[in-house]
Amino acid sequence: GNSASTTTQKIGVVFCGRPSSGAHSIVNGVLDFIVGANSSSKVLGFVGGTKGLFAQQYIDVTPAMMDVYRNQGGFDLMGRTCDSIAKPEEMDSAKTSCMRLSLTGLVLVGGTRTATDAAYLSEFFTGQGVNTKVVAIPCSIDGTMKNQFIETAVGFDTASKTYSQLVGNLAIDGASARKYWYFMRMMGNSPSHTVLEVALQTHANYILLSEDIIANRKSLNDVVTEIADSVCRRSDAGKNFGTLLIPEGAIAALPEFSVLIDEISNLYQTSEQSNITLEEVNAKLSPFAAALLGSLPAYLQKQLVMERTTDKQIDLSQIETEKLLAHFVEAEIKRRKAAGMFKGKFTPVCSYLGYQARCALPSNFDCDYGYSLGGVSAALILGGFTGYMPAITGLKRPTAEWCVGATPITAMLEADDVEKLPSGMVRPRVIPANISLSGPAYNSFLNNMKEYEAEEMYQNPGPVQFNGPTADTRTKTLELEDMDYISALTSLRDVMEEVKAVCAPGCSTNVLKMAYTSISTLSEILELNAAATGVPLTRSK
Amino acid sequence: GNSASTTTQKIGVVFCGRPSSGAHSIVNGVLDFIVGANSSSKVLGFVGGTKGLFAQQYIDVTPAMMDVYRNQGGFDLMGRTCDSIAKPEEMDSAKTSCMRLSLTGLVLVGGTRTATDAAYLSEFFTGQGVNTKVVAIPCSIDGTMKNQFIETAVGFDTASKTYSQLVGNLAIDGASARKYWYFMRMMGNSPSHTVLEVALQTHANYILLSEDIIANRKSLNDVVTEIADSVCRRSDAGKNFGTLLIPEGAIAALPEFSVLIDEISNLYQTSEQSNITLEEVNAKLSPFAAALLGSLPAYLQKQLVMERTTDKQIDLSQIETEKLLAHFVEAEIKRRKAAGMFKGKFTPVCSYLGYQARCALPSNFDCDYGYSLGGVSAALILGGFTGYMPAITGLKRPTAEWCVGATPITAMLEADDVEKLPSGMVRPRVIPANISLSGPAYNSFLNNMKEYEAEEMYQNPGPVQFNGPTADTRTKTLELEDMDYISALTSLRDVMEEVKAVCAPGCSTNVLKMAYTSISTLSEILELNAAATGVPLTRSK
Repeated sequence: GNSASTTTQKIGVVFCGRPSSGAHSIVNGVLDFIVGANSSSKVLGFVGGTKGLFAQQYIDVTPAMMDVYRNQGGFDLMGRTCDSIAKPEEMDSAKTSCMRLSLTGLVLVGGTRTATDAAYLSEFFTGQGVNTKVVAIPCSIDGTMKNQFIETAVGFDTASKTYSQLVGNLAIDGASARKYWYFMRMMGNSPSHTVLEVALQTHANYILLSEDIIANRKSLNDVVTEIADSVCRRSDAGKNFGTLLIPEGAIAALPEFSVLIDEISNLYQTSEQSNITLEEVNAKLSPFAAALLGSLPAYLQKQLVMERTTDKQIDLSQIETEKLLAHFVEAEIKRRKAAGMFKGKFTPVCSYLGYQARCALPSNFDCDYGYSLGGVSAALILGGFTGYMPAITGLKRPTAEWCVGATPITAMLEADDVEKLPSGMVRPRVIPANISLSGPAYNSFLNNMKEYEAEEMYQNPGPVQFNGPTADTRTKTLELEDMDYISALTSLRDVMEEVKAVCAPGCSTNVLKMAYTSISTLSEILELNAAATGVPLTRSK
Repeated sequence: GNSASTTTQKIGVVFCGRPSSGAHSIVNGVLDFIVGANSSSKVLGFVGGTKGLFAQQYIDVTPAMMDVYRNQGGFDLMGRTCDSIAKPEEMDSAKTSCMRLSLTGLVLVGGTRTATDAAYLSEFFTGQGVNTKVVAIPCSIDGTMKNQFIETAVGFDTASKTYSQLVGNLAIDGASARKYWYFMRMMGNSPSHTVLEVALQTHANYILLSEDIIANRKSLNDVVTEIADSVCRRSDAGKNFGTLLIPEGAIAALPEFSVLIDEISNLYQTSEQSNITLEEVNAKLSPFAAALLGSLPAYLQKQLVMERTTDKQIDLSQIETEKLLAHFVEAEIKRRKAAGMFKGKFTPVCSYLGYQARCALPSNFDCDYGYSLGGVSAALILGGFTGYMPAITGLKRPTAEWCVGATPITAMLEADDVEKLPSGMVRPRVIPANISLSGPAYNSFLNNMKEYEAEEMYQNPGPVQFNGPTADTRTKTLELEDMDYISALTSLRDVMEEVKAVCAPGCSTNVLKMAYTSISTLSEILELNAAATGVPLTRSK
């Protein structure tokens, strides 16, 4: 129990990111924690995301209301619109709302952008004398809001399991009919955590990873050749079928398309119009980009040019990259057939695994994790912490063994990857985690890649279960990436010795100052994380 | 127990239709029944469907093999290729295979076409002195293999629950983001059982049914206007989002497209080519059909003209009807906007719910049902019955209360809807069941249709569960269509009185003969169904 828990709390919650399973459990965790401590405490759910926050539109989230949404997927308790609190006028609006409503705390639920916003908002509030404590909770299906402090985001477990269910079904379907190559694109923007996790769960025949495309500077031609090679190898073994997983972000990772997409985006940014026609774009592109665009089927040209998010950015979810790749692979296979290098058949069937999963009924893990993070957030606010993200570690172990803590978001900001604000200002930001190509999850896939391609080692994990033996499984990523304790300890000792050596008597004042600031901040974080906060660790039933 | 159960049996099983969950349980049921009675009995699984049967390619299905596939989805134990045993040479091949392999029984797993084939094949075998008994098992995700004897087909339960899970997720997603209209097309050919079942499970805002389009002679324009009206009504209430379910067969049901599709199909039937180009088609279409084709986006034109099954029929699964309708509804909404009749926003997001579900891990119901039907089939073969379909009734009740029986497939043939064989021959056939527009399932939807459209009464049934309180739920269709016993009895007495009146002394010999034949056949069927066969009724674990 927390000694401050008798204070009446008024905590606002905002869904900032895209829908992700487990968000309702977060609200539930905040509510149960503060109402349990003081029955006149309140949770204000802002309607329609940050827009609701700015307009002071909210619902009083009552325990009775929570009964309807408990452990349900989606964001429909409150909804969402746009995600950001970054512009000066947005920060001012947030300030006005928090002060008028006398909020003791503000919980922002979302991904890396939301975490960045929370860091700057808390700083702004502190500077302006606003007493509202700001906390950000990692919640996004793409699994990118993770780092050395945060093991995973709420929703990744449910989404990757739901996609794995569908990919498992399709793989078995392919092995039954033995005549289709399933080209499956998966939601999740640029990093490819979802694709890798689904591959580890289902043993799909072939996968693309944006991180691999970028690191190995692969061109469209390289990727098409790779896929065609895989098709040919399987066909030579009498298998004119297979499964290919494609991350939504693959297209933006391919250098040719990255140039084309940038050129089109620049046209939008410098244009007053919210829609630019294909003809207008064609006239203004560089010859190379125009040639690439012209080589695509008409509907893909239209998607690349026309599909924009509300802030004129390209909307990757609307680009049928799976069809684009199938189009080019078909051409390549046709060429090989004409040259007598391919004797089989190639029939791609494309599908997009996107919106179907992000509002799924949350898995037990996401219910537990969301509920716990909600509770810890409330505890942080009660304890007077602002600019923090709750952190639960040991997630691959049973819930009773989870460790509760928190980290200042500033510790996650990366200064070498600055964000350009619309105002022209730049600021360090929390960046989406990429797959480490030398990490254990990717290595586990690499070790089996050839077998997965050649054989049908498909595993169908089936639908998410809420009871029974498989109800509390963790993602493969979480299981594999959990650091080995002894080697972690050894590595820590090594770097401490390095710091000691650099900071020996005679070192510069600057170096000394930098080391002192860093280590004293670290010390504070560690203290906070070492103190048990007594937050409930399992979901309410 | 069956007294004949000590005979050594050799039963062949063929997967004839498209993949459907529960097929492996059928094989399991056949195997357990005959091996339990006599350990030297064998099940031969023909590899690659009817092609495997003709070529005598099979695997010996052993209990050890079954351990790997028990309660798993898909057809991958044996695979499949084409579906039919109808041409004289196909029937001859089947005869040769059954005789050479000394099969005591042949179990064909599939839909209505397979049932028809089984009826004629059993007749052919009897005429030719082939001792192999032929049995057909209803197994197809579209739920069309049902009639007064057969309550549902194996696989419909799993597929419709899996689609409901995805539609439930998408509906909640729509209500969270509040900016997309989800246009969702669902696999299942012309009848729309899947769409209706999913609508009953999820309370989607609007649905199309092929049966309604046909019965009410709705044109493309009618359907587009209907959908646009629904979009406008919801938009007027501030809701620029919603969910629309579209059956795969809607496009073939629309009169304009039905004409266009027929014209294109005729071109294919009279052509030697397996691919006809868009230009060739355009040159030969009637002016009306050419104009309609020309009004479509290029990729849809290509799909309508180019996407063919192996027998040159149109492949409905490859036609993106959801995009086609979204295209026309967008144009209609634009028109209304220009005329000041629409103030909102309309952003359709299209998805196809097809291949993802048909190889899903089978629900408990489909495991139990498939396993039981397999067992009953083996019992029929042991008992010397040929041309039969096993029938289990009372399916909505717990498995322990299911009633086991069988029906000669000839009793299901419909003479007024003859099938034209490639040879030019015609024959009565087992027809796919359409939704009864006056039936209880559709009525239940109709009664709530306005509320479902106006409000977000979405229900997300979540993923199929194998344990826990929802693991043994039945489909809404099954629950609603189960006949009320007393009214069924009354109806029966009424028609018996009618027959009595028609067959009063003085009636023609023809009438008398027809009545006698029908009623004596019926009497046989009833006797068979009244005798308990003692087949195991739950799946093996």
